[in-house]
Amino acid sequence: MTDRTDIDALIDLMARLPGLGPRSARRAVLHLIAKRGPLLTPLAALMQTVADTARECLNCGNIGTADICPICADDRRATGVICVVEDVADLWAMERSGTFRGRYHVLGGTLSALDSIGPEELHIPRLVDRVAAEEVTEVILALNATVDGQTTAHYIADQLEGRVALSSLAQGVPIGGELDYLDDGTITAALNARKPL
Amino acid sequence: MTDRTDIDALIDLMARLPGLGPRSARRAVLHLIAKRGPLLTPLAALMQTVADTARECLNCGNIGTADICPICADDRRATGVICVVEDVADLWAMERSGTFRGRYHVLGGTLSALDSIGPEELHIPRLVDRVAAEEVTEVILALNATVDGQTTAHYIADQLEGRVALSSLAQGVPIGGELDYLDDGTITAALNARKPL
Ligand SMILES: [Zn+2]
Ligand SMILES: [Zn+2]
Repeated sequence: MTDRTDIDALIDLMARLPGLGPRSARRAVLHLIAKRGPLLTPLAALMQTVADTARECLNCGNIGTADICPICADDRRATGVICVVEDVADLWAMERSGTFRGRYHVLGGTLSALDSIGPEELHIPRLVDRVAAEEVTEVILALNATVDGQTTAHYIADQLEGRVALSSLAQGVPIGGELDYLDDGTITAALNARKPL
Repeated sequence: MTDRTDIDALIDLMARLPGLGPRSARRAVLHLIAKRGPLLTPLAALMQTVADTARECLNCGNIGTADICPICADDRRATGVICVVEDVADLWAMERSGTFRGRYHVLGGTLSALDSIGPEELHIPRLVDRVAAEEVTEVILALNATVDGQTTAHYIADQLEGRVALSSLAQGVPIGGELDYLDDGTITAALNARKPL
């Protein structure tokens, strides 16, 4: 099948997506070719657009299409409360729950000596700056209930102690659970029952 | 998140791929944005190329980038034997087993009164024509071991009876099994032990 190289290359790239193995990548590519007009062509165009326009918000780390994301730019949202999350998927999960109306700070991971991820890599100094600059009165540490998540939460709490009210998500987050797997109701319950640190 | 429409639209399109739900589509899109240079941009370009160039072989129904696919164009492959498969995924599965060196005929489905899929839709008249035109001496019916697959195999066998040696995949194909799920060794065994109808 010497001439199938573009299709083979497409299968190889698709197989690198999380959740897709070689077999599901082949199925996906055949499906795309069968649905060329309604699916493959618009998908190619949209991927190009997103590749050209998607960027990290300079303020909070959310993904958007401008230097400042829609949440940071929305002046109907409270400025005095920042919710700290590990990644953008967790921010989206919080937004789907529809409960939180403040701002976010996306760390982009957790502290890890093993992987040389320190406070700088997680934009924690920028968070400390934001707390002062945006006159923040409360920081909600909505990190995953994992060892790394909680270690990171404690580190951030130490940095901010005495400057601001600190809370963490409480009721409803199972031990070892990750936010992005939880249903909206659970996230809402955990947020409403957040407890001071 | 009023400004996230392109990213939202990309998630929605990705969620329409087989094997990806909304959550894995979100994960995939965040991964694509994080790997913009090495993954998203080349994927967008490759999808556009495949959308522009992929087509069905006019002879056998395989997917390639020319009117005649590489297998039909390869004169090192035997012309006297045609292997009939339900879809291109099954053809690829046969090719991965590396055993068969003849030509293919891709039906694009199975006979189904319910879905109004008759012999014309499956290019069965074209198969009968090929058997005459290409001086075919053997047709291997490598259809899935499902009721629809076997019904279709019997219909094709009736059309070709007396003109050509007919065989079907035998040993190793489990009842209800689909070719694309089988490992290469099983397909090789089934092909080598094919039995005359
Ligand atoms: Zn932002
Ligand atoms: Zn062909």
